[in-house]
Amino acid sequence: MTSIVRVIERILVPPTDLLGDGVFETLHLRPSGPWLLDEHLARLARSAAILDMPSPSVRLPGDLPDSGALRIIYTRQILDISVSPIPASVLRERRDGVRALAADSGISVRRRPPWSIAAAKSLSYAENFAARRWAARHGADDLIGLSTEGYVLEAPTASVVWLTGDELCTVPPVEAGILPGITAAHLLSRAPSVGLRPAERMITLGELAAADTIWLASSLRGLAEVTSLDGASRTRSPWTPRLLELLGYSATDA
Amino acid sequence: MTSIVRVIERILVPPTDLLGDGVFETLHLRPSGPWLLDEHLARLARSAAILDMPSPSVRLPGDLPDSGALRIIYTRQILDISVSPIPASVLRERRDGVRALAADSGISVRRRPPWSIAAAKSLSYAENFAARRWAARHGADDLIGLSTEGYVLEAPTASVVWLTGDELCTVPPVEAGILPGITAAHLLSRAPSVGLRPAERMITLGELAAADTIWLASSLRGLAEVTSLDGASRTRSPWTPRLLELLGYSATDA
Repeated sequence: MTSIVRVIERILVPPTDLLGDGVFETLHLRPSGPWLLDEHLARLARSAAILDMPSPSVRLPGDLPDSGALRIIYTRQILDISVSPIPASVLRERRDGVRALAADSGISVRRRPPWSIAAAKSLSYAENFAARRWAARHGADDLIGLSTEGYVLEAPTASVVWLTGDELCTVPPVEAGILPGITAAHLLSRAPSVGLRPAERMITLGELAAADTIWLASSLRGLAEVTSLDGASRTRSPWTPRLLELLGYSATDA
Repeated sequence: MTSIVRVIERILVPPTDLLGDGVFETLHLRPSGPWLLDEHLARLARSAAILDMPSPSVRLPGDLPDSGALRIIYTRQILDISVSPIPASVLRERRDGVRALAADSGISVRRRPPWSIAAAKSLSYAENFAARRWAARHGADDLIGLSTEGYVLEAPTASVVWLTGDELCTVPPVEAGILPGITAAHLLSRAPSVGLRPAERMITLGELAAADTIWLASSLRGLAEVTSLDGASRTRSPWTPRLLELLGYSATDA
């Protein structure tokens, strides 16, 4: 087991480590340190348990940069910690929002197989990338996956959050069989401090479209407001800068 | 783009190459060379196309060993070729067969999402490994996945083949939305030479259980006879050694 900190570069692994059979986390680096570190380490350990891997022992170095992305990759052979700049597209989506398409992911919330790893943030991410490429081919930036029953699930790399009146909602991860979103959960925990009521709800696409505002929540983007859904433009919300500020994200830089 | 031949060892990759966003093939090395090389290279190229990757340019070295496993891994950054011994468990399953469990994979054959990569042999293999671990926890060796409609799909690392009378069958990959099995397709193409009629059929678990013999077909195991299905023992078939011989596999060694 090796542990290395690098800025991008290359890593030495056995070829079998390229089969996606591990887990990872991506964290937002801030002057105060990696944001929501305990929560991300706890999810890394839960993901590992879902893949029948021992709990990882992560020791971060003291000299991390005060901005950028921190990635922790944990396979059956290695634990790798790397730092990279936040891609410009991520900052643009935080600032300008995303055009999203909703589509049937072919997954039933009631029939996840008993060996499902959907609740783990696994390294088997090819389908997530494929979903985003499909959205891009259809003139959008991102995708909102629906269950075969018509429920809103998640985006390929983000949780779905929405505001209706003063209720700030996300999808219940256990009931939906999706990855528990750390940024979304933290946002909901802070909602009362800005006069909003947090809630978890299973909703349909029609109900989502009727919400006042929709966001995709993830660690680097923070909140990316959905500016169009299935081609229908949506009015920008005054809540976006307010909630980004609440979470400590800058709308203009890293 | 680098290309290396090694016996196991380690490989230098960018950390993003650990996100399962690539494709691979595993071939059976024989004294005559890598078996069904053209077919595996064609599938590698088809898999790459499904992931919107350029067609790989694979040049194998001339000094490959005459037994073992050859693995070709192709990501957006690297093309890696490695050789390893065939695991003892693989040879044992070829010789002694496998106890299989059938289970709902939660996937509908009619509702694959438009971005599905199920027909590609992608590096995002964690769910396949998880399915086999689940089978092992339940006293079996392998798993036969069923669609939500009840159709037999595939095993996590193999195609399902069965014999009923003189009809040798497998699942139609396009209709089922599964990976096209190279070993299974080759076996069916050779069926007439031993007096069997090849066919592709969508069948239910009940129909599969009623077959005379069931095998899991893959490049290293060749054919692993299903010796029990969901706990019900099955009579060993005289066809297993005959078909292994037809395909050029030894029942006793590599």
